[in-house]
Amino acid sequence: MQLNPNYQTIASNDLRQFAISVFKYIGCSDLDSELAADVLLKADLRGIDSHGVARLSGYVRLWEKGRINAKPNVKVIRQTTSTATIDGDAGLGLVVAPRAMELAIEKGKNCGTGWVAVGNSNHFGIAAYHAMKALEFDMIGYALTNASPLVAPTFSKERMLGTNPICYAIPAGMYEPVVIDMATSSAANGKLEIAQRKNAPVPEGWIQTKLGGITTDANGLKLGGALLPLGSDKDRGSHKGYGLGAMVDIFSGVLSGANFGPWVPPFVSFLDVQPNLPGKGLGHFLGAIQVDGFSDVDIFKNNMDLWIERFKNAEPINESQKVIIPGEPEAQFMKIRIADGIPLIDAVVQDLKQLSINFKLEHPF
Amino acid sequence: MQLNPNYQTIASNDLRQFAISVFKYIGCSDLDSELAADVLLKADLRGIDSHGVARLSGYVRLWEKGRINAKPNVKVIRQTTSTATIDGDAGLGLVVAPRAMELAIEKGKNCGTGWVAVGNSNHFGIAAYHAMKALEFDMIGYALTNASPLVAPTFSKERMLGTNPICYAIPAGMYEPVVIDMATSSAANGKLEIAQRKNAPVPEGWIQTKLGGITTDANGLKLGGALLPLGSDKDRGSHKGYGLGAMVDIFSGVLSGANFGPWVPPFVSFLDVQPNLPGKGLGHFLGAIQVDGFSDVDIFKNNMDLWIERFKNAEPINESQKVIIPGEPEAQFMKIRIADGIPLIDAVVQDLKQLSINFKLEHPF
Repeated sequence: MQLNPNYQTIASNDLRQFAISVFKYIGCSDLDSELAADVLLKADLRGIDSHGVARLSGYVRLWEKGRINAKPNVKVIRQTTSTATIDGDAGLGLVVAPRAMELAIEKGKNCGTGWVAVGNSNHFGIAAYHAMKALEFDMIGYALTNASPLVAPTFSKERMLGTNPICYAIPAGMYEPVVIDMATSSAANGKLEIAQRKNAPVPEGWIQTKLGGITTDANGLKLGGALLPLGSDKDRGSHKGYGLGAMVDIFSGVLSGANFGPWVPPFVSFLDVQPNLPGKGLGHFLGAIQVDGFSDVDIFKNNMDLWIERFKNAEPINESQKVIIPGEPEAQFMKIRIADGIPLIDAVVQDLKQLSINFKLEHPF
Repeated sequence: MQLNPNYQTIASNDLRQFAISVFKYIGCSDLDSELAADVLLKADLRGIDSHGVARLSGYVRLWEKGRINAKPNVKVIRQTTSTATIDGDAGLGLVVAPRAMELAIEKGKNCGTGWVAVGNSNHFGIAAYHAMKALEFDMIGYALTNASPLVAPTFSKERMLGTNPICYAIPAGMYEPVVIDMATSSAANGKLEIAQRKNAPVPEGWIQTKLGGITTDANGLKLGGALLPLGSDKDRGSHKGYGLGAMVDIFSGVLSGANFGPWVPPFVSFLDVQPNLPGKGLGHFLGAIQVDGFSDVDIFKNNMDLWIERFKNAEPINESQKVIIPGEPEAQFMKIRIADGIPLIDAVVQDLKQLSINFKLEHPF
């Protein structure tokens, strides 16, 4: 247990080049390698350390197990004017989801909104990468994905849902866009890991024990417990977090032909995929909504600026902590880390170094 | 304070006829009166007592104040193939929202999905009424609305958002549809009212005091406090509930040209509308998504049945309480209340009787 992990700070472009070399090594095309690296780096730049290069070796292990196809033939298997379903051919979600989002944006330009369900895919990194693509076109972006079952619905002992995130990216005028990117559990797994490293207890309401009891042990999940839905318990509305996680699962999994609920294949390669699966891989659901389909873009952006200003200036409980606009902290991280580089904890540096040794790749560490 | 309120049970059709007569009295057309009564009755039948005929006199008082137009000229003011924006002309949300949902369904039939932002409207009853309309056409229905500011964002002393509900209605095969209809606050106002009537404390995490402190006083909201976002506090993810409430506000208010945030006009007629509003009335956002746009309808419904069965049979923490499918309790209420009538507490009966006396209307009480 490392109480004060050491950090090493790496320039984001060096880290990107290293990630590209890893994806190329496993057989991805040059373009796909760059795309996948960009998705991971966006997480590191935005301060979502759990979803960046810290996961690189996780993707590699899934490839080693034959669960990721480095040269997928991504196909549109069904479509209408505003909708499509894509089969990701077991490709990296980091590559499949951006393709799907391109299609959603194209459809959105054509008829006001575009919606793409993606099946037979893998973990797609941070939802915000995909949703934020829409912003360049004055569109609102939307991204959902299901994930390895870790969350117990209200009243359940069993893990039935992933942390199933929901993301909305909404353009503004003079301010940064509003980006809501949230797990539908009360705490993301990344936060648990931080508590585990510090050997610190976690708040009541993050996890339950194997028997469904209350615990503040940060290792509760490893001991067979489960994450709790947003709301934490029935009294405080955990059935709502469960409902949102269910919605994400149904849109991402059931609508797309992917797996759903407890059948979603685990991200960690040491857990086997279950037999007799109802679908293929895991699934995403992506959307692009033309602001211009509803409102003058200028009027909308002016009112978004007014919205942001009014919420920033809401009377705070403590003068020292103002109300935060969703996406504001991540945008601040991004500015700092583009300039100063990305701090990686020692465990991640060692993991990436090992990868570079195994694959005989140059590395910046 | 009434500890054991008496109930009177009224046949739903009698209650519907009474509601129709009230809407006719204030000047609504025959069709609009029936529609508005149907929306209210659906809440009573589904067991959402706070949103049914208990609110009838509230709508009347808004009409008396000149804030509701009984003969609105509902207009489409902008549209694309898959989107539209509607101006509700200050009509009852109970009438405007169903019209908007019809348009969303029509667009959805035509191009896979239909999305309608509604501005210049009023309270639209339960979100589920509108979203569930899509089910008849093998569509997934979606409904959002903003509402009177009662919820304080994380770190805010001020009330900035309504309880801003999110509703998804998803068709299944042999089972009832999955209907997720949830406020984005940790507790709905209706639940507070029940605690107030019982003079009982509420769980920590429902409300904060006027200064932003913790309280379990059910009257905390009346004393100037605020409801808390889903998640209850920062540690347990209240920034996520705040983010969801913000999303609902932006789609319903900013996109439609309605008011948003703290400017949303209050439902209670004794509070005045603020000066210098940025928009008109309050807003909704409605959607209809063709299942067939993504998947064979039969395959989807079979997999939804599998989803429902698997979740119903998740291993429960206590054998006596199985996992609940979203919408299941409301569907059970509906069966019972169609057969046995709708129980109204004495305060509501007295309120409706007074209405019948004032307007010289026949009544079933």
